[in-house]
Amino acid sequence: MHNPWQDTTLPAETRAAELLSRMTLEEKLAQLVGIWPGSDAGEDDDADVAPMQSQINSTAPDLETLLADGLGQLTRPFGTAPVDPTERARSLADEQRRIANANRFSIPAQVHEECLTGFAAWQAAVFPTPLAWGATFDPGLVERAARLIGDSMRSAGIHQGLAPVLDVLRDPRWGRTEETIGEDPYLVGTIGTGYVRGLEAAGIVATLKHFAGHAASRGARNHAPVSIGPRELADVALLPFEMALREGGARSVMSAYHDLDGVPASADAWLLTTLLREEWGFTGTVVSDYFAVSFLELTHQVAGSPGEAAGLALAAGIDVELPAQRCYGRPLLKAVQSGEVAEDLVDRAVLRVLAQKAELGLLDPDWSPEPAALADGATVDLDPPAMREVARQLAEESVVLLANRDGTLPLAGTGRIAVAGPLADDVAPLLGCYTFPRHVGVRHPDLPVGIELTSAFAALRAELPGAEVTLAASAADTEGADVVVMVAGDRSGLFGRGTSGEGCDVLDLDLPDGQGALLDDLLDTGLPVVLVLLTGRPYALGRWADRLAGCVQAFFPGEEGGGAVAGVLSGRVNPSGRLPVGVPRHTGGQPAPYLAPPLGRAGEASSVDPTPLHPFGHGLSYTSFAWDDAAADASTLDTDGATTVRLRVTNTGDRAGTEVVQLYLHDPVARVARPVNRLIGYARVDLDPGRSAEVAFRFHADLSAYTLAPGRRIVEPGALELRLGASSGDLGHTVALTLTGPERVVGTGRMLDCPATVRHLP
Amino acid sequence: MHNPWQDTTLPAETRAAELLSRMTLEEKLAQLVGIWPGSDAGEDDDADVAPMQSQINSTAPDLETLLADGLGQLTRPFGTAPVDPTERARSLADEQRRIANANRFSIPAQVHEECLTGFAAWQAAVFPTPLAWGATFDPGLVERAARLIGDSMRSAGIHQGLAPVLDVLRDPRWGRTEETIGEDPYLVGTIGTGYVRGLEAAGIVATLKHFAGHAASRGARNHAPVSIGPRELADVALLPFEMALREGGARSVMSAYHDLDGVPASADAWLLTTLLREEWGFTGTVVSDYFAVSFLELTHQVAGSPGEAAGLALAAGIDVELPAQRCYGRPLLKAVQSGEVAEDLVDRAVLRVLAQKAELGLLDPDWSPEPAALADGATVDLDPPAMREVARQLAEESVVLLANRDGTLPLAGTGRIAVAGPLADDVAPLLGCYTFPRHVGVRHPDLPVGIELTSAFAALRAELPGAEVTLAASAADTEGADVVVMVAGDRSGLFGRGTSGEGCDVLDLDLPDGQGALLDDLLDTGLPVVLVLLTGRPYALGRWADRLAGCVQAFFPGEEGGGAVAGVLSGRVNPSGRLPVGVPRHTGGQPAPYLAPPLGRAGEASSVDPTPLHPFGHGLSYTSFAWDDAAADASTLDTDGATTVRLRVTNTGDRAGTEVVQLYLHDPVARVARPVNRLIGYARVDLDPGRSAEVAFRFHADLSAYTLAPGRRIVEPGALELRLGASSGDLGHTVALTLTGPERVVGTGRMLDCPATVRHLP
Repeated sequence: MHNPWQDTTLPAETRAAELLSRMTLEEKLAQLVGIWPGSDAGEDDDADVAPMQSQINSTAPDLETLLADGLGQLTRPFGTAPVDPTERARSLADEQRRIANANRFSIPAQVHEECLTGFAAWQAAVFPTPLAWGATFDPGLVERAARLIGDSMRSAGIHQGLAPVLDVLRDPRWGRTEETIGEDPYLVGTIGTGYVRGLEAAGIVATLKHFAGHAASRGARNHAPVSIGPRELADVALLPFEMALREGGARSVMSAYHDLDGVPASADAWLLTTLLREEWGFTGTVVSDYFAVSFLELTHQVAGSPGEAAGLALAAGIDVELPAQRCYGRPLLKAVQSGEVAEDLVDRAVLRVLAQKAELGLLDPDWSPEPAALADGATVDLDPPAMREVARQLAEESVVLLANRDGTLPLAGTGRIAVAGPLADDVAPLLGCYTFPRHVGVRHPDLPVGIELTSAFAALRAELPGAEVTLAASAADTEGADVVVMVAGDRSGLFGRGTSGEGCDVLDLDLPDGQGALLDDLLDTGLPVVLVLLTGRPYALGRWADRLAGCVQAFFPGEEGGGAVAGVLSGRVNPSGRLPVGVPRHTGGQPAPYLAPPLGRAGEASSVDPTPLHPFGHGLSYTSFAWDDAAADASTLDTDGATTVRLRVTNTGDRAGTEVVQLYLHDPVARVARPVNRLIGYARVDLDPGRSAEVAFRFHADLSAYTLAPGRRIVEPGALELRLGASSGDLGHTVALTLTGPERVVGTGRMLDCPATVRHLP
Repeated sequence: MHNPWQDTTLPAETRAAELLSRMTLEEKLAQLVGIWPGSDAGEDDDADVAPMQSQINSTAPDLETLLADGLGQLTRPFGTAPVDPTERARSLADEQRRIANANRFSIPAQVHEECLTGFAAWQAAVFPTPLAWGATFDPGLVERAARLIGDSMRSAGIHQGLAPVLDVLRDPRWGRTEETIGEDPYLVGTIGTGYVRGLEAAGIVATLKHFAGHAASRGARNHAPVSIGPRELADVALLPFEMALREGGARSVMSAYHDLDGVPASADAWLLTTLLREEWGFTGTVVSDYFAVSFLELTHQVAGSPGEAAGLALAAGIDVELPAQRCYGRPLLKAVQSGEVAEDLVDRAVLRVLAQKAELGLLDPDWSPEPAALADGATVDLDPPAMREVARQLAEESVVLLANRDGTLPLAGTGRIAVAGPLADDVAPLLGCYTFPRHVGVRHPDLPVGIELTSAFAALRAELPGAEVTLAASAADTEGADVVVMVAGDRSGLFGRGTSGEGCDVLDLDLPDGQGALLDDLLDTGLPVVLVLLTGRPYALGRWADRLAGCVQAFFPGEEGGGAVAGVLSGRVNPSGRLPVGVPRHTGGQPAPYLAPPLGRAGEASSVDPTPLHPFGHGLSYTSFAWDDAAADASTLDTDGATTVRLRVTNTGDRAGTEVVQLYLHDPVARVARPVNRLIGYARVDLDPGRSAEVAFRFHADLSAYTLAPGRRIVEPGALELRLGASSGDLGHTVALTLTGPERVVGTGRMLDCPATVRHLP
């Protein structure tokens, strides 16, 4: 006979309540905190992170005392040192056994890791960065990748992944641009939901972050205050979170570092409880971003002590302090004992944590610390061929052909190709900052990368065995070449140790590391120059726009990225990526997101033109497409109704290719200023030459909803335009619709998605 | 026996009601609109403005029909062409006589003009730009200037001035930076209140603009959307308006072009009625910014027609459409006639307009179209010696000495001085965009300036007759000089026709017109280089900070500005200006206002350091000061109490000078994130060498108030620090205070000002 909390026939919440009722206060609090093994090992040289890390265990009792009460979370066991995955998985199992055995309820820790572009472990597969997922416009493929990522984490003993990032990009100067899916909420929401579905299908708790509005920081600086109003928050920042919770089933949400209009996101009861739980019905856990509870005392100064910070965070709705226990450890214990913090609030959080542990099987009588994958002496392979195959496909779909003059591309058949750029033969610009090699390796340059990677140069040489592909270091080396390929790249890193990545914000959008000067030199040779960008953000290209023979934007394409880029250059891959963020013309003038009302657009009263060089959604192909017969099944629609919007797309070129049909909403007159165009649907359409397909979008009137006043979202009768096109700057096909009937107030039940079906025509 | 509305013994509101009750709808509406005489004369070449101007009279009936119903406003009679002021004043009187005679109530028009830096008329005095007023920290002197400006307008038949601009600067890339008083709400509020007092004392209606939040536009672009939350709006943007209404008695407010979080400021009933009138008790008129009612249809798209736009604006609380009658003319007439707009709303606006006309004497039986100044054939002098004297004093107080290495400055005694810079011998960089010479002249380069102006170069030569002061056009010309003075300047203009001014926004804060390259060349000579900035905004100087021998920031110092700058350079004037906005280190990275919480400051998690090169409040003197004995009369204070904070300042140098003592509030723990330091008081202290003065600030606990939630401003018990210093970056004298007693909710009755007294010690 098991204890009731071990009874797998009972609901998780019941098992959690049974367990809670038997716990001391100390045992409860232990479930709300973590320890970070090895976090202060080898970090003495790290001036930026050390002050925070020194606090990690500063208020913790010794480990044995701690473990006797239990342990909520184990923080990043794979994240700090290059260890063999199988070995680490086995030692993690040992640690879990020790943790479980040390407390009287035999509860193991919930183990979390980063997984922004794959499991952030030594020798693990590295997929393209989220900005590249955005460029694929392919949530299904992202879901497949996430499923593989989740499976690999599960095989190593991980329960929770701290991804995806659902921040809607507002200003590409932000170092974390590479971590976002793009500047459109619908794209972020649909791609992010794909990721969540894959991770959750593998049994890994997906953690949506950074809740909410984090990307809109002042001056695009990391951790800076956010100044947006409640309508912008609702219609831009919150939408992807709502989608990923409702459509994706994410079980955790991470609070953010910033304050929004003075209110720290990690102390915002409206955000973390009223909206998230009471309105949206979320029942999972809310975890703090690392040190975010301490931030309430140290950088927001809304609390006078760690205990006060804990009280504010707990009351707002943060269940778990990450990464350790500076506030939720002894300071919270004292605050509860003294009556400053109600124990009910502790119980509320513990119930959520224990219910999630029950769901994960961690309270089951047959729980074993060894993942099934380790049974019988098997080894863990975090980068198997199946992952590389999906990584390759994702990379290939993410490459965006921005410009191609005179058919310079593809390069197949070109005789002599000079490849230039300081990172052209380097694998660094394939990887974003949350990959193990960049996250850890950026501080340890001698660290072996751990996985097989091919630089863009090496891949291009392999791709074109009949051509003479040489590495030029300077413009002088390009003599005799038919085409010059300049690879401009970011080195992603952390806290200023890179040109992109968390804390690697920039003053302007000039190409990093002075690579623009090399590009100038190369263009001055008079040879055709193709610019290839392996970057974490879009950079301003206006200065060169009229002179480039071709331009390819690949963001960070991951472990198979070299080949993907080479494949597009050679022509083996017909490019199908579309920009998830506009490429600016100017290095300054930010922010200028495409979601903007008519006010202040080009031609208005400012000398600064915010129009991007290449707009959101833009991307070329090696074939051509014709668009015809855009129409809706109805011209009027009830404010609660739906109709189908159809369009025929034909591949009019001579090779197979993929068109990305994009559907935008334009609202001619509304009661608040609305963006001129806003993406509400899209579909990838693969077409052989000469073939056609009908793309049908199921448009529900809910998709025209907007926030009239805080908390009041409406669908309004009146005229609408549904604009179809190949980018937000090329919307040549308009379907007029009139909504009739009463104005509707819509809430959480509204349609969020605009499903598309592609029917290939005979 | 007069008509009752002419009875000067009755309250203005009663007279307005008497008149209203006799009016037809057409007559009422005529009081809410204007005409702009000459607005489309000579503007055919103006592609930017023409589309708007072509709409001005597009829906107006012919003039005779119009005038029969009356006329609310005459728009800018002096603003479009260079005409002799006396002649124009006389012809304006003729026009007013015609207007009054044409309607059955004999009501003349209310005549308004721009007066940002003086009456914006041909041959009128040009005072320094508002950013320079901010640099004086001298509201009393600004009040004197405004009184003279008001007197001169009154002498020409003007009733209303469209100033001051009370927008709190957030991002100096904005072209209108020069029009603002600076980046601190208290400085903007106190200086702006001084301006309002002076203008209103002259009988001119002051118009506060642009209500509200206009400076926080996205990317600092003119007319771009504003994304700030309600707390930031209340504590930063609204404070100066509240001060200038309550302490200054301004009688008009101008609505703004932008939308804030989607809601157009010119259709915001909460802003224009609930807050402004019901909460603040404002009883004057609200006028639209030029074309802002049309913007509701054309650029915000919250109205489907001019009539709908009129209905929204009128309901929100805009009483008068400026500059003409595109919406409030026939479209509004039709909308009222059809019942779409309630006539009550029209009556509400007309009552306000007529009450103001009654106050102005325009309804009096003895009203005469000729201003008193024109009696007996007198002429109007818009630039008399008394104005030049105040303009000189204001200019001298506004010059900020940013840096002075090795005593390079003052230059008295220096033998050979080479003056460089393309605008060094040009009067253009003395004047901002709302001066007549720049506003009109920028489109008509042949237009004579109309007033006597002296360039910085010419003034310096006059100032130092014993020195050899030569004009260098290039670095080669500086050979043999002892010191090089580089004058870097803006050319202010409109809509892209300048490097500063309305619509002349910039991508980054690099010196304009490539003047940085000349500075590089000059520095490469090895000679000591003093940089003098005659600019409309602060530019990034970090690149040169370590190499400059001296640096002087003068903004646009007005008609006496050349001499003021030369006086500071020579040493005749001991500089006393203080920065009203930080001078940035970097050309990019904006916005980075000094009002920021600890989050995201230097040393935090971003590679971008937002710390300015020279902080808000900074400015040097040719003498030195010692600060001692900072103390408060009480160490604890009731949340409704006041105390006095004292400090002794001593001139420890060998010449007379002026220190600006600045008082900042630091709140160690609050319930929302607050700026680290915030200006709450200041005092200019003139001291002879060796002399001391005691500066005493009357600090009321209300000055620690902040907005906890929209509409809820509190004074909270707890610890406070009052920090005294010579700039926001040099706060060495701290007085600790503890507020006790209950938390208080404070509203419109709270103390806004922190009066300072300066007692010279024997």
